Amino acid sequence: MMHYGVRLPFATRWNDNDQYGHLNNTVYYEAMDTAINTWMMGNGGLDPQGDAIALCAASSCEFRASASFPEPLEVGIGIERLGTTSITWALGILRPGQEGPIAVGRFVHVFVGAADRTPTPIPAGIRSVIERDLLG
Amino acid sequence: MMHYGVRLPFATRWNDNDQYGHLNNTVYYEAMDTAINTWMMGNGGLDPQGDAIALCAASSCEFRASASFPEPLEVGIGIERLGTTSITWALGILRPGQEGPIAVGRFVHVFVGAADRTPTPIPAGIRSVIERDLLG
Amino acid sequence: MMHYGVRLPFATRWNDNDQYGHLNNTVYYEAMDTAINTWMMGNGGLDPQGDAIALCAASSCEFRASASFPEPLEVGIGIERLGTTSITWALGILRPGQEGPIAVGRFVHVFVGAADRTPTPIPAGIRSVIERDLLG
Amino acid sequence: MMHYGVRLPFATRWNDNDQYGHLNNTVYYEAMDTAINTWMMGNGGLDPQGDAIALCAASSCEFRASASFPEPLEVGIGIERLGTTSITWALGILRPGQEGPIAVGRFVHVFVGAADRTPTPIPAGIRSVIERDLLG
Repeated sequence: MMHYGVRLPFATRWNDNDQYGHLNNTVYYEAMDTAINTWMMGNGGLDPQGDAIALCAASSCEFRASASFPEPLEVGIGIERLGTTSITWALGILRPGQEGPIAVGRFVHVFVGAADRTPTPIPAGIRSVIERDLLG
Repeated sequence: MMHYGVRLPFATRWNDNDQYGHLNNTVYYEAMDTAINTWMMGNGGLDPQGDAIALCAASSCEFRASASFPEPLEVGIGIERLGTTSITWALGILRPGQEGPIAVGRFVHVFVGAADRTPTPIPAGIRSVIERDLLG
Repeated sequence: MMHYGVRLPFATRWNDNDQYGHLNNTVYYEAMDTAINTWMMGNGGLDPQGDAIALCAASSCEFRASASFPEPLEVGIGIERLGTTSITWALGILRPGQEGPIAVGRFVHVFVGAADRTPTPIPAGIRSVIERDLLG
Repeated sequence: MMHYGVRLPFATRWNDNDQYGHLNNTVYYEAMDTAINTWMMGNGGLDPQGDAIALCAASSCEFRASASFPEPLEVGIGIERLGTTSITWALGILRPGQEGPIAVGRFVHVFVGAADRTPTPIPAGIRSVIERDLLG
């Protein structure tokens, strides 16, 4: 089982539940996107108004069990691959206090120049905290 | 009954329905926001990357009947007040072919400088199409 | 200034920010809807699968200052009017540790039978905690 | 290049654009989910209140080019695998009049009983239109 180096809280919302009474599948992508951006901004110095921004090149998710508002969830963050200009995140949607994820996802971020949108190296601050906290 | 000078289509989405099986109330605000921005961009020359942008200062909605995905809806656009730097839109969520709205809303837009975010006059192109198409 | 009897946390998400770089106006309605449903479910025994459910009959919001992901927010809950079958909530979007709200809203809930969707009295458990915690 | 047997319109919304000024990645999942449910409901007799419902077991998307509100998009629908209780949809997000998708996705639906949420055969009406329109 994947061990996630970081776990962040994710609060569900009333309108996250769809007409089947559980979290709509798109909410899991919001959770993954929110968790990795929060962590890069808070720990790695990512500035969404800065020169290098991270765009989603690919993502996927496997849904193993359902969840519903108002239960609180967590996002586990790991690294599948750390490249020169891209990061492949390994992510889990988890219930607090449990190890087995209810959903397992992958998110590929490519860093690009904010202006020209062509690939640019992962900023040093982000690479550094990934190596320390997620690969260490 | 309010007559709307312009009616634009609004397509519903699977995840717009909440656990009560109808459109969540927030979707009506997405509909109103989308309709007036679409119309200002397509007819009045609004450029979201330009010098003057429109921010929402207040909004409200009264919900008279419910609707559900996948039914198509429309947004009726009218003007309640045209000021120097602000527009108060009168909006209706309508079923195609029907006059009586299922929801009636109001949206106050204030134009501000994109950089300093202080009030600036409504761009001439937008004022002009409002006067011609909605107040004419 | 309104004093809110209850304050609940509201976590922002990456995709809450729109192209103007701040929380889209619809997010404030998600926040208000989430806070009052969370509170009614957790404190007043509201069961979304039960016989009596709360539908939004009207809502409004006045936006005084902008906020952006990833900042954490709070929703202050108060009561403007407690009727027989309806509740008018007085709501504030707040920054943690601050008294003055960045947005002030109102939400009218009407209780209806889940099956027939006609008005029904506010469940006793909900009325009771409102009287104790918000009107006491 | 994949040929999609069906193409359905997908209208973008103001708040679909995130702070990078383009459609947030989660919107593509909303588009795919909306298109296949719209098509199953309109053409295959799927009833979300019925005995057999379709849950998302897995999904993925590869993002090749960005798009922005207010441009209209389309979703191309194809079939990768038609099982006994599950459907693997092959999906493309397309610009009207163009063959090459800006995003390519996959969606695995598993049919389950609405009450017990255990796998159940794909309803005959849905299987039939898939065979006729998408595999014919």
